[in-house]
Formats: sequence, C-alpha cells, structure tokens
Amino acid sequence: MDNTASADVALDPAIAQRLKKTPDGLVAAIAQQHDTGEVLMLGWMDEEALRRTLTSGRATYYSRSRREYWRKGDTSGHIQEVRSVALDCDGDALLVQVEQTGAACHTGTRTCFDGRQLPLSDPDHSDRPAPVDVPATPAAKETTTDA
Amino acid sequence: MDNTASADVALDPAIAQRLKKTPDGLVAAIAQQHDTGEVLMLGWMDEEALRRTLTSGRATYYSRSRREYWRKGDTSGHIQEVRSVALDCDGDALLVQVEQTGAACHTGTRTCFDGRQLPLSDPDHSDRPAPVDVPATPAAKETTTDA
Repeated sequence: MDNTASADVALDPAIAQRLKKTPDGLVAAIAQQHDTGEVLMLGWMDEEALRRTLTSGRATYYSRSRREYWRKGDTSGHIQEVRSVALDCDGDALLVQVEQTGAACHTGTRTCFDGRQLPLSDPDHSDRPAPVDVPATPAAKETTTDA
Repeated sequence: MDNTASADVALDPAIAQRLKKTPDGLVAAIAQQHDTGEVLMLGWMDEEALRRTLTSGRATYYSRSRREYWRKGDTSGHIQEVRSVALDCDGDALLVQVEQTGAACHTGTRTCFDGRQLPLSDPDHSDRPAPVDVPATPAAKETTTDA
C-alpha cells in the first residue's frame, strides 16, 4: 500500500509530537478488552512500539526491565488484536482497545489487577471486602483492646 | 480510629515496597468508572498520593507538570469517589475504580480519550472509521496517482 509506506519506517510526526513521555522516553499504554471494558494491563510504548501497534494490528510494547520490544502473545499465545488506539488530551497515555486471547497477565490471571486490591482505610468504606493479598499491618491486626 | 492512625502518616511499607516507579518516582494510575467500565483518565501517584487515595475516599494524584498534589474535583467539582484500588502484578500500575461526577477530562469530555483516536494503518482495519483529530500526513492525502 503506497499510502502507508511512510508509516512503515517512522511514526507519523503529527502523532509523535503530541507524545508527552516519561523521563525514560515512554508513554503509558492501557490495554482494555474492547467489549467487556475490562482493564487488562498497563504496558509502555515508545514511538516505535506505538508505530508497530498502529500498523501491525497487534499490540506491541517496550519492556522497561528487558529493554526490548515485545509483541504481546508471541511467546504465550495470548495475543492482543488491536481494535482502536486513542491518545489522551495531554499526550501521556494511550488507550488500546483489544481482543485479548486468554490471560493478559503473565501470572495466568485474566487481567494484571485481578485479586490484587489494596485496603481502603476510609471509615466510609469499612463495609467493603477485606483485601486479599496484602497482609494487615501489625497496627491494624489487633486494635480491639484500644477501641 | 486507632487502627488507621499509622496509615495517616505514611503509606503502609508493605504496599510501598511493591511499587515500581518511573525515574521520577511515580506510578501510573488508571481511573475507571466502576460500573460502566469506561477508562476515564490516567494520572500519576507517588506514595503520598496513593496514601491519600486509600485513606480519604477521594482520588488524589501528583501533577507532573505542576509538581503538586491535586485531589480530583477540588476546583472543577468533578470529583472521583474511590470504590477500589488494585496494584498490578509488577507494581507499576494502579487501577482506581471510581464514581466519577461529571466530566473526567479538563477539556469537558467525559473521558480524556473521547474523540482522540489515532489512525490504524493495518490493511485489515481499512473498514474502520477515519480518525477524527489527527490530520493526514501529506504522504497519505493523495496517493491515487501512485496506487
């Protein structure tokens, strides 16, 4: 396709200039299941990862720890087919709506947030379920004698 | 309440040690409308912003541009009441489920991503609607003579 030839070598400058990056040159990319609304994970993209995501149909991120590009699902099979990509008002976040195959999280959970709630200590929220994976602090464990 | 006294002065160390921050000391925080699943915005939190969010019932962020804390809605009235907070598997993203009053975006749109889609150039996506706010590049405007 002639009209995408330029997009195959570099990200459209009109998009690139809107990106507001972290000090290490990245933009946060939120992956959301397009039909259920589940927030699946947060990854990071530089200009090249965004270009690949926009042009390949497959979500591609930049790994901060491994310092390399990774096309989601290449090793796990849990691919993300891109349905839409939006850049927010101030250019520091991408919303990538995808069709997620299988688990989005490398731990095997559907999303990277499943079962990972933090405790809310606002008294107005005291009727909420207790957090499942953060141990109570010693101060919070036994306070009935002080109550 | 005695059992929250320690949480009023510093973030629980058990949570703080799980945070994997950007070079400028922040963690990405995704705000999602708890019932509709809309991704409203992405903000940034340091330990103190997260502590305030967990203990006050109101989403509180750290502004990278203004270098100050801001409790969402204090000036606009568009507050976010916190329903749950989850920290992802590798500690670099928070999912904050909220009840959003009014528009989440300072531009007046419901979310910071509304109407801000980027063009997908994958041929498989050629039946998708054209992007609404990114001008076509000169290379993409007129290619019929080359096609």
